[in-house]
Amino acid sequence: MSKNELPVIQEACHTALVSEPLSEIESEALAHIFKALADPVRLRLFSLIASFDGGEACVCDLTLHFDVSQPTISHHLKVLREAGLVNSERRATWIYYSVRPAVLAQLSALLTPAVVVG
Amino acid sequence: MSKNELPVIQEACHTALVSEPLSEIESEALAHIFKALADPVRLRLFSLIASFDGGEACVCDLTLHFDVSQPTISHHLKVLREAGLVNSERRATWIYYSVRPAVLAQLSALLTPAVVVG
Repeated sequence: MSKNELPVIQEACHTALVSEPLSEIESEALAHIFKALADPVRLRLFSLIASFDGGEACVCDLTLHFDVSQPTISHHLKVLREAGLVNSERRATWIYYSVRPAVLAQLSALLTPAVVVG
Repeated sequence: MSKNELPVIQEACHTALVSEPLSEIESEALAHIFKALADPVRLRLFSLIASFDGGEACVCDLTLHFDVSQPTISHHLKVLREAGLVNSERRATWIYYSVRPAVLAQLSALLTPAVVVG
C-alpha cells in the first residue's frame, strides 16, 4: 500500500447543535429580505417609516428626508414592498407605507436566539 | 402671469415622527452587515453557528452541513467575520466561529421597535 492510498483520518471535534438552523428554503427567502435591507438608502427609508407614528408614513413625508429624486425613492419603496417589508395603501392623493410586523418578527427571531446565547 | 409660472402648491399630510430614524452614517454601517446576511449560504452558515451549543461551532462541524467546497465555506466565513457578525479563534487544529451578541442586538433593536408598533 503506497502512501497515497492511506485513508485520511481526520479528527473532528463535533460540537453539539442545540437548535434547528435555517433550512435551505428558509435561507433563500430570508436572504432575499436581508438583500432589500442591504442598501443604505433603503435601510434609512425603512427605518424612517418605522419611526413615524403607528409605523406608517405618507410618501410625501418620506421624500423630505432624502436628497435623492422622487423616482429613486419610489424604486426603493417598491423593492421594500416586494420583499414584504412594507405595505402600501393609497388614500386620496397620497400613498401611505407601513412596516409589516410579521416579517420583522421573523427577522428579529432569527437574530434573538443568538443574542440570548451571548 | 402665465399658467406655467403659477407656483405649485402641494398639500402634504405631515404625519409625526415618534422616534429617531437611522442616520446616514448608521445606515451605511448597518447596510454593510445586512449585505453579509443577504446570501443564502452565508445566512445558513450564520444560523448554523448560532444553533450550536454556546453559539460557537468548530469549522469542521460547519463544513459537514454544506455541499459547497471548503474554500467557498472559508470565503463566506471571512465575509461574516469582516462584517463583524462572527468571531474566529484557533484552538489546536481547528478554528472555532462564534456569533457576536453585540452586533446582533443592534440589528434586532433596529427591527424590534417596528415589531412593537404593529
